[in-house]
Amino acid sequence: MRVLGVDPGLTRCGVGVVDSLPGRKARMVDVGVVRSEPELSVDLRLLRVAEGLEEWLERTVPDVVAVERVFAQNNRGTVMGTAQVAGLAMVAAARRGVPVAMHTPSEVKAAVTGSGRADKEQVQRMIARILGLAELPRPADAADALALAVTHLWRPSGALQGGERNELTPAQRAWAAAERTARTSSHRGAPSRARR
Amino acid sequence: MRVLGVDPGLTRCGVGVVDSLPGRKARMVDVGVVRSEPELSVDLRLLRVAEGLEEWLERTVPDVVAVERVFAQNNRGTVMGTAQVAGLAMVAAARRGVPVAMHTPSEVKAAVTGSGRADKEQVQRMIARILGLAELPRPADAADALALAVTHLWRPSGALQGGERNELTPAQRAWAAAERTARTSSHRGAPSRARR
Repeated sequence: MRVLGVDPGLTRCGVGVVDSLPGRKARMVDVGVVRSEPELSVDLRLLRVAEGLEEWLERTVPDVVAVERVFAQNNRGTVMGTAQVAGLAMVAAARRGVPVAMHTPSEVKAAVTGSGRADKEQVQRMIARILGLAELPRPADAADALALAVTHLWRPSGALQGGERNELTPAQRAWAAAERTARTSSHRGAPSRARR
Repeated sequence: MRVLGVDPGLTRCGVGVVDSLPGRKARMVDVGVVRSEPELSVDLRLLRVAEGLEEWLERTVPDVVAVERVFAQNNRGTVMGTAQVAGLAMVAAARRGVPVAMHTPSEVKAAVTGSGRADKEQVQRMIARILGLAELPRPADAADALALAVTHLWRPSGALQGGERNELTPAQRAWAAAERTARTSSHRGAPSRARR
Protein backbone atom coordinates (compact mmCIF):
# COMPACT_ATOMS: atom_id res chain seq x y z
CA MET A 1 0.00 0.00 0.00
CA ARG A 2 1.19 3.49 -0.87
CA VAL A 3 0.15 6.39 1.35
CA LEU A 4 0.55 10.08 0.57
CA GLY A 5 0.69 12.06 3.83
CA VAL A 6 -0.25 15.75 3.82
CA ASP A 7 0.69 18.17 6.60
CA PRO A 8 -1.53 21.05 5.49
CA GLY A 9 -0.29 24.62 5.42
CA LEU A 10 -0.67 27.61 3.12
CA THR A 11 2.96 28.79 3.16
CA ARG A 12 4.48 25.30 3.39
CA CYS A 13 2.40 22.17 2.87
CA GLY A 14 4.38 19.04 3.75
CA VAL A 15 3.97 16.04 1.44
CA GLY A 16 5.45 12.59 2.03
CA VAL A 17 4.88 9.31 0.21
CA VAL A 18 5.54 5.97 1.88
CA ASP A 19 5.13 2.36 0.73
CA SER A 20 4.40 -0.43 3.18
CA LEU A 21 6.80 -3.38 3.10
CA PRO A 22 6.31 -6.85 4.60
CA GLY A 23 6.97 -7.19 8.34
CA ARG A 24 5.74 -3.78 9.51
CA LYS A 25 8.40 -2.00 7.53
CA ALA A 26 8.06 1.06 5.34
CA ARG A 27 10.00 2.71 2.54
CA MET A 28 10.06 6.39 1.68
CA VAL A 29 9.12 7.05 -1.95
CA ASP A 30 9.42 10.83 -1.97
CA VAL A 31 9.12 13.81 0.34
CA GLY A 32 8.88 17.56 -0.10
CA VAL A 33 6.84 20.68 0.41
CA VAL A 34 4.38 22.56 -1.75
CA ARG A 35 4.80 26.29 -1.19
CA SER A 36 2.85 29.43 -2.01
CA GLU A 37 4.25 32.95 -1.98
CA PRO A 38 2.80 35.03 0.88
CA GLU A 39 2.79 38.08 -1.43
CA LEU A 40 0.05 36.61 -3.62
CA SER A 41 -3.66 37.00 -2.92
CA VAL A 42 -5.24 34.14 -0.99
CA ASP A 43 -7.10 32.74 -3.99
CA LEU A 44 -3.89 32.48 -6.04
CA ARG A 45 -2.01 30.99 -3.07
CA LEU A 46 -4.67 28.31 -2.63
CA LEU A 47 -4.59 27.62 -6.36
CA ARG A 48 -0.82 27.11 -6.31
CA VAL A 49 -1.09 24.66 -3.42
CA ALA A 50 -4.00 22.82 -5.07
CA GLU A 51 -2.01 22.44 -8.28
CA GLY A 52 1.06 21.30 -6.36
CA LEU A 53 -0.93 18.65 -4.50
CA GLU A 54 -2.55 17.50 -7.75
CA GLU A 55 0.90 17.11 -9.28
CA TRP A 56 1.99 14.92 -6.33
CA LEU A 57 -1.14 12.78 -6.62
CA GLU A 58 -0.69 12.28 -10.35
CA ARG A 59 3.00 11.53 -10.11
CA THR A 60 3.00 9.19 -7.11
CA VAL A 61 -0.48 7.55 -7.50
CA PRO A 62 -1.15 6.75 -3.84
CA ASP A 63 -3.75 4.24 -2.64
CA VAL A 64 -4.73 6.49 0.28
CA VAL A 65 -4.22 10.15 1.18
CA ALA A 66 -3.69 10.75 4.92
CA VAL A 67 -4.32 14.33 6.04
CA GLU A 68 -3.68 15.84 9.45
CA ARG A 69 -6.97 16.62 11.14
CA VAL A 70 -7.09 20.37 11.79
CA PHE A 71 -8.92 21.74 14.83
CA ALA A 72 -10.60 25.13 15.08
CA GLN A 73 -8.80 25.88 18.34
CA ASN A 74 -5.38 25.72 16.63
CA ASN A 75 -3.36 28.90 16.03
CA ARG A 76 -5.96 31.42 14.91
CA GLY A 77 -3.57 33.27 12.67
CA THR A 78 -3.03 30.33 10.38
CA VAL A 79 -5.90 27.92 11.05
CA MET A 80 -8.09 29.14 8.21
CA GLY A 81 -5.40 28.63 5.57
CA THR A 82 -4.49 25.29 7.10
CA ALA A 83 -8.11 24.14 7.05
CA GLN A 84 -8.51 25.31 3.46
CA VAL A 85 -5.41 23.44 2.30
CA ALA A 86 -6.61 20.30 4.09
CA GLY A 87 -9.89 20.69 2.18
CA LEU A 88 -8.07 21.06 -1.13
CA ALA A 89 -6.06 17.90 -0.44
CA MET A 90 -9.28 16.00 0.34
CA VAL A 91 -11.02 17.21 -2.83
CA ALA A 92 -7.98 16.47 -5.02
CA ALA A 93 -7.95 12.90 -3.66
CA ALA A 94 -11.74 12.42 -3.89
CA ARG A 95 -11.74 13.71 -7.48
CA ARG A 96 -9.33 10.92 -8.39
CA GLY A 97 -11.24 8.26 -6.43
CA VAL A 98 -8.48 7.99 -3.81
CA PRO A 99 -9.79 7.39 -0.25
CA VAL A 100 -8.94 9.98 2.39
CA ALA A 101 -8.09 9.32 6.03
CA MET A 102 -7.56 11.89 8.75
CA HIS A 103 -5.32 11.48 11.75
CA THR A 104 -4.87 13.75 14.74
CA PRO A 105 -1.43 14.86 15.96
CA SER A 106 -1.83 12.59 19.01
CA GLU A 107 -2.55 9.60 16.80
CA VAL A 108 0.60 10.38 14.82
CA LYS A 109 2.72 10.62 17.96
CA ALA A 110 1.27 7.40 19.36
CA ALA A 111 1.72 5.47 16.11
CA VAL A 112 5.28 6.62 15.45
CA THR A 113 6.78 6.79 18.96
CA GLY A 114 4.36 4.72 21.06
CA SER A 115 3.44 7.77 23.15
CA GLY A 116 0.72 10.28 22.36
CA ARG A 117 2.70 12.86 24.33
CA ALA A 118 6.01 12.65 22.43
CA ASP A 119 7.48 15.95 21.28
CA LYS A 120 7.92 16.91 17.64
CA GLU A 121 11.63 16.13 17.63
CA GLN A 122 11.11 12.61 18.96
CA VAL A 123 8.58 11.99 16.19
CA GLN A 124 11.03 13.22 13.56
CA ARG A 125 13.91 11.12 14.87
CA MET A 126 11.70 8.03 14.91
CA ILE A 127 10.49 8.70 11.37
CA ALA A 128 14.08 8.93 10.14
CA ARG A 129 14.89 5.65 11.88
CA ILE A 130 11.73 3.84 10.66
CA LEU A 131 12.38 4.86 7.06
CA GLY A 132 16.14 4.29 7.28
CA LEU A 133 17.00 7.90 6.44
CA ALA A 134 20.48 9.19 7.17
CA GLU A 135 19.15 12.66 7.94
CA LEU A 136 15.97 14.15 9.36
CA PRO A 137 13.78 15.36 6.50
CA ARG A 138 13.67 19.18 6.36
CA PRO A 139 11.67 21.30 6.78
CA ALA A 140 9.68 19.89 9.68
CA ASP A 141 6.49 19.96 7.58
CA ALA A 142 8.00 17.37 5.25
CA ALA A 143 8.89 15.06 8.17
CA ASP A 144 5.40 15.53 9.60
CA ALA A 145 3.89 14.45 6.29
CA LEU A 146 5.96 11.24 6.35
CA ALA A 147 4.84 10.65 9.94
CA LEU A 148 1.20 10.95 8.84
CA ALA A 149 1.75 8.43 6.08
CA VAL A 150 3.44 5.96 8.46
CA THR A 151 0.64 6.53 10.98
CA HIS A 152 -1.89 5.47 8.39
CA LEU A 153 0.07 2.31 7.62
CA TRP A 154 0.44 1.45 11.29
CA ARG A 155 -2.92 2.58 12.65
CA PRO A 156 -4.53 0.04 14.98
CA SER A 157 -6.47 -2.33 12.75
CA GLY A 158 -10.13 -2.43 13.71
CA ALA A 159 -9.93 1.12 15.05
CA LEU A 160 -9.39 2.90 11.74
CA GLN A 161 -10.20 6.17 13.45
CA GLY A 162 -9.10 8.32 10.60
CA GLY A 163 -10.52 6.19 7.85
CA GLU A 164 -13.64 8.19 7.19
CA ARG A 165 -14.39 6.21 4.07
CA ASN A 166 -15.07 3.31 6.41
CA GLU A 167 -17.98 5.17 7.98
CA LEU A 168 -19.90 4.93 4.69
CA THR A 169 -22.85 2.60 4.42
CA PRO A 170 -22.76 0.04 1.57
CA ALA A 171 -25.21 2.22 -0.42
CA GLN A 172 -23.02 5.29 0.00
CA ARG A 173 -20.00 3.28 -0.98
CA ALA A 174 -21.72 2.12 -4.15
CA TRP A 175 -22.76 5.66 -4.97
CA ALA A 176 -19.23 6.93 -4.44
CA ALA A 177 -17.79 4.19 -6.62
CA ALA A 178 -20.27 4.96 -9.40
CA GLU A 179 -19.43 8.66 -9.21
CA ARG A 180 -15.75 7.88 -9.41
CA THR A 181 -16.21 5.63 -12.43
CA ALA A 182 -18.27 8.27 -14.22
CA ARG A 183 -15.66 10.87 -13.45
CA THR A 184 -12.52 8.92 -14.29
CA SER A 185 -13.02 8.88 -18.04
CA SER A 186 -13.69 12.61 -18.32
CA HIS A 187 -11.21 13.99 -15.83
CA ARG A 188 -8.12 15.62 -17.26
CA GLY A 189 -4.98 13.95 -16.02
CA ALA A 190 -6.75 11.27 -14.01
CA PRO A 191 -4.01 8.88 -12.93
CA SER A 192 -3.96 5.48 -14.52
CA ARG A 193 -5.47 2.80 -12.34
CA ALA A 194 -3.40 0.07 -14.02
CA ARG A 195 -0.90 -0.01 -11.15
CA ARG A 196 -3.44 -1.32 -8.68
CA MET B 1 -20.48 43.54 -14.26
CA ARG B 2 -21.67 40.12 -13.12
CA VAL B 3 -20.88 38.98 -9.57
CA LEU B 4 -21.31 35.48 -8.18
CA GLY B 5 -21.76 35.66 -4.40
CA VAL B 6 -20.90 32.63 -2.26
CA ASP B 7 -22.12 32.16 1.32
CA PRO B 8 -19.89 29.21 2.18
CA GLY B 9 -21.20 26.18 4.03
CA LEU B 10 -20.72 22.42 3.85
CA THR B 11 -24.36 21.39 4.26
CA ARG B 12 -25.82 24.37 2.37
CA CYS B 13 -23.62 26.71 0.36
CA GLY B 14 -25.58 29.75 -0.83
CA VAL B 15 -24.93 30.93 -4.39
CA GLY B 16 -26.36 34.09 -5.95
CA VAL B 17 -25.58 35.80 -9.25
CA VAL B 18 -26.29 39.48 -9.81
CA ASP B 19 -25.71 41.84 -12.76
CA SER B 20 -25.11 45.55 -12.25
CA LEU B 21 -27.45 47.88 -14.14
CA PRO B 22 -27.02 51.60 -14.83
CA GLY B 23 -27.97 53.95 -11.98
CA ARG B 24 -26.90 51.84 -9.02
CA LYS B 25 -29.43 49.17 -9.85
CA ALA B 26 -28.97 45.42 -9.92
CA ARG B 27 -30.72 42.44 -11.44
CA MET B 28 -30.79 38.90 -10.08
CA VAL B 29 -29.58 36.35 -12.64
CA ASP B 30 -29.98 33.21 -10.56
CA VAL B 31 -29.92 32.04 -6.95
CA GLY B 32 -29.73 28.69 -5.20
CA VAL B 33 -27.82 26.46 -2.86
CA VAL B 34 -25.24 23.75 -3.39
CA ARG B 35 -25.79 20.96 -0.87
CA SER B 36 -23.86 17.96 0.35
CA GLU B 37 -25.34 15.05 2.25
CA PRO B 38 -24.18 14.96 5.88
CA GLU B 39 -24.07 11.14 5.69
CA LEU B 40 -21.13 11.19 3.27
CA SER B 41 -17.48 11.35 4.36
CA VAL B 42 -16.00 14.84 4.49
CA ASP B 43 -13.88 14.36 1.37
CA LEU B 44 -16.90 13.35 -0.73
CA ARG B 45 -18.97 16.20 0.74
CA LEU B 46 -16.29 18.72 -0.19
CA LEU B 47 -16.06 17.22 -3.67
CA ARG B 48 -19.81 17.57 -4.20
CA VAL B 49 -19.72 21.22 -3.17
CA ALA B 50 -16.64 21.88 -5.33
CA GLU B 51 -18.35 20.36 -8.35
CA GLY B 52 -21.54 22.29 -7.64
CA LEU B 53 -19.65 25.58 -7.45
CA GLU B 54 -17.75 24.76 -10.65
CA GLU B 55 -21.06 24.14 -12.40
CA TRP B 56 -22.33 27.58 -11.28
CA LEU B 57 -19.12 29.26 -12.48
CA GLU B 58 -19.26 27.59 -15.87
CA ARG B 59 -22.95 28.25 -16.38
CA THR B 60 -23.13 31.88 -15.22
CA VAL B 61 -19.59 33.08 -16.19
CA PRO B 62 -19.19 35.82 -13.55
CA ASP B 63 -16.62 38.64 -13.76
CA VAL B 64 -15.94 38.42 -10.03
CA VAL B 65 -16.59 35.89 -7.27
CA ALA B 66 -17.44 37.47 -3.89
CA VAL B 67 -16.99 35.15 -0.91
CA GLU B 68 -17.93 35.79 2.69
CA ARG B 69 -14.82 36.18 4.79
CA VAL B 70 -14.81 33.45 7.44
CA PHE B 71 -13.27 34.06 10.85
CA ALA B 72 -11.69 31.44 13.09
CA GLN B 73 -13.76 32.61 16.05
CA ASN B 74 -17.03 31.72 14.27
CA ASN B 75 -19.08 28.71 15.41
CA ARG B 76 -16.48 26.05 16.11
CA GLY B 77 -18.74 23.19 15.13
CA THR B 78 -19.01 24.31 11.53
CA VAL B 79 -16.14 26.76 10.97
CA MET B 80 -13.76 24.21 9.47
CA GLY B 81 -16.21 23.06 6.81
CA THR B 82 -17.17 26.68 6.12
CA ALA B 83 -13.52 27.68 5.71
CA GLN B 84 -12.88 24.71 3.45
CA VAL B 85 -15.83 25.52 1.20
CA ALA B 86 -14.69 29.17 1.01
CA GLY B 87 -11.29 27.86 -0.09
CA LEU B 88 -12.84 25.65 -2.76
CA ALA B 89 -14.82 28.60 -4.12
CA MET B 90 -11.63 30.69 -4.29
CA VAL B 91 -9.68 27.96 -6.09
CA ALA B 92 -12.51 27.28 -8.55
CA ALA B 93 -12.55 30.99 -9.43
CA ALA B 94 -8.76 31.35 -9.59
CA ARG B 95 -8.50 28.27 -11.82
CA ARG B 96 -10.77 30.02 -14.34
CA GLY B 97 -8.96 33.37 -14.05
CA VAL B 98 -11.90 35.00 -12.25
CA PRO B 99 -10.87 37.52 -9.56
CA VAL B 100 -11.98 36.82 -5.99
CA ALA B 101 -13.11 39.39 -3.42
CA MET B 102 -13.91 38.77 0.22
CA HIS B 103 -16.38 40.74 2.29
CA THR B 104 -17.12 40.52 5.99
CA PRO B 105 -20.67 40.19 7.33
CA SER B 106 -20.47 43.81 8.60
CA GLU B 107 -19.50 45.05 5.16
CA VAL B 108 -22.49 43.22 3.72
CA LYS B 109 -24.86 44.73 6.27
CA ALA B 110 -23.48 48.22 5.72
CA ALA B 111 -23.61 47.98 1.92
CA VAL B 112 -27.12 46.56 1.76
CA THR B 113 -28.91 48.36 4.63
CA GLY B 114 -26.63 51.31 5.38
CA SER B 115 -25.94 49.99 8.89
CA GLY B 116 -23.22 47.52 9.87
CA ARG B 117 -25.41 46.46 12.78
CA ALA B 118 -28.53 45.49 10.85
CA ASP B 119 -30.00 42.08 11.63
CA LYS B 120 -30.18 39.23 9.14
CA GLU B 121 -33.86 39.75 8.40
CA GLN B 122 -33.36 43.44 7.56
CA VAL B 123 -30.61 42.45 5.12
CA GLN B 124 -32.87 39.90 3.47
CA ARG B 125 -35.81 42.30 3.14
CA MET B 126 -33.54 44.93 1.60
CA ILE B 127 -32.06 42.43 -0.84
CA ALA B 128 -35.54 41.43 -2.01
CA ARG B 129 -36.41 45.12 -2.48
CA ILE B 130 -33.13 46.00 -4.25
CA LEU B 131 -33.50 43.13 -6.69
CA GLY B 132 -37.25 43.61 -7.12
CA LEU B 133 -38.12 40.14 -5.87
CA ALA B 134 -41.69 39.40 -4.82
CA GLU B 135 -40.48 36.99 -2.12
CA LEU B 136 -37.47 36.64 0.14
CA PRO B 137 -35.10 34.10 -1.37
CA ARG B 138 -35.07 30.88 0.67
CA PRO B 139 -33.13 29.38 2.36
CA ALA B 140 -31.35 32.25 4.10
CA ASP B 141 -28.01 31.08 2.67
CA ALA B 142 -29.28 31.89 -0.82
CA ALA B 143 -30.34 35.40 0.21
CA ASP B 144 -26.98 35.92 1.94
CA ALA B 145 -25.19 35.00 -1.28
CA LEU B 146 -27.19 37.61 -3.21
CA ALA B 147 -26.34 40.16 -0.49
CA LEU B 148 -22.64 39.38 -0.94
CA ALA B 149 -22.91 39.92 -4.68
CA VAL B 150 -24.72 43.24 -4.23
CA THR B 151 -22.15 44.27 -1.61
CA HIS B 152 -19.40 43.75 -4.14
CA LEU B 153 -21.22 45.89 -6.72
CA TRP B 154 -21.87 48.65 -4.19
CA ARG B 155 -18.66 48.57 -2.18
CA PRO B 156 -17.19 52.04 -1.54
CA SER B 157 -15.07 52.85 -4.57
CA GLY B 158 -11.48 53.50 -3.56
CA ALA B 159 -11.86 51.29 -0.51
CA LEU B 160 -12.17 47.95 -2.30
CA GLN B 161 -11.58 46.22 1.00
CA GLY B 162 -12.46 42.81 -0.22
CA GLY B 163 -10.71 43.05 -3.56
CA GLU B 164 -7.60 41.15 -2.69
CA ARG B 165 -6.51 41.07 -6.29
CA ASN B 166 -6.00 44.81 -5.92
CA GLU B 167 -3.28 44.26 -3.32
CA LEU B 168 -1.04 42.67 -5.95
CA THR B 169 2.00 44.55 -7.19
CA PRO B 170 2.25 45.07 -10.97
CA ALA B 171 4.80 42.23 -11.18
CA GLN B 172 2.50 39.85 -9.32
CA ARG B 173 -0.40 40.90 -11.51
CA ALA B 174 1.64 40.13 -14.62
CA TRP B 175 2.62 36.76 -13.22
CA ALA B 176 -0.97 35.92 -12.35
CA ALA B 177 -2.15 36.95 -15.82
CA ALA B 178 0.53 34.81 -17.48
CA GLU B 179 -0.43 31.84 -15.33
CA ARG B 180 -4.07 32.28 -16.24
CA THR B 181 -3.30 32.46 -19.94
CA ALA B 182 -1.16 29.34 -19.77
CA ARG B 183 -3.90 27.54 -17.91
CA THR B 184 -6.90 28.60 -19.96
CA SER B 185 -6.04 26.60 -23.06
CA SER B 186 -5.42 23.37 -21.18
CA HIS B 187 -8.15 23.48 -18.57
CA ARG B 188 -11.14 21.26 -19.12
CA GLY B 189 -14.36 23.23 -19.22
CA ALA B 190 -12.73 26.64 -18.92
CA PRO B 191 -15.51 29.12 -19.63
CA SER B 192 -15.34 31.02 -22.87
CA ARG B 193 -13.96 34.50 -22.46
CA ALA B 194 -15.73 35.76 -25.59
CA ARG B 195 -18.49 37.36 -23.53
CA ARG B 196 -16.13 39.93 -22.03
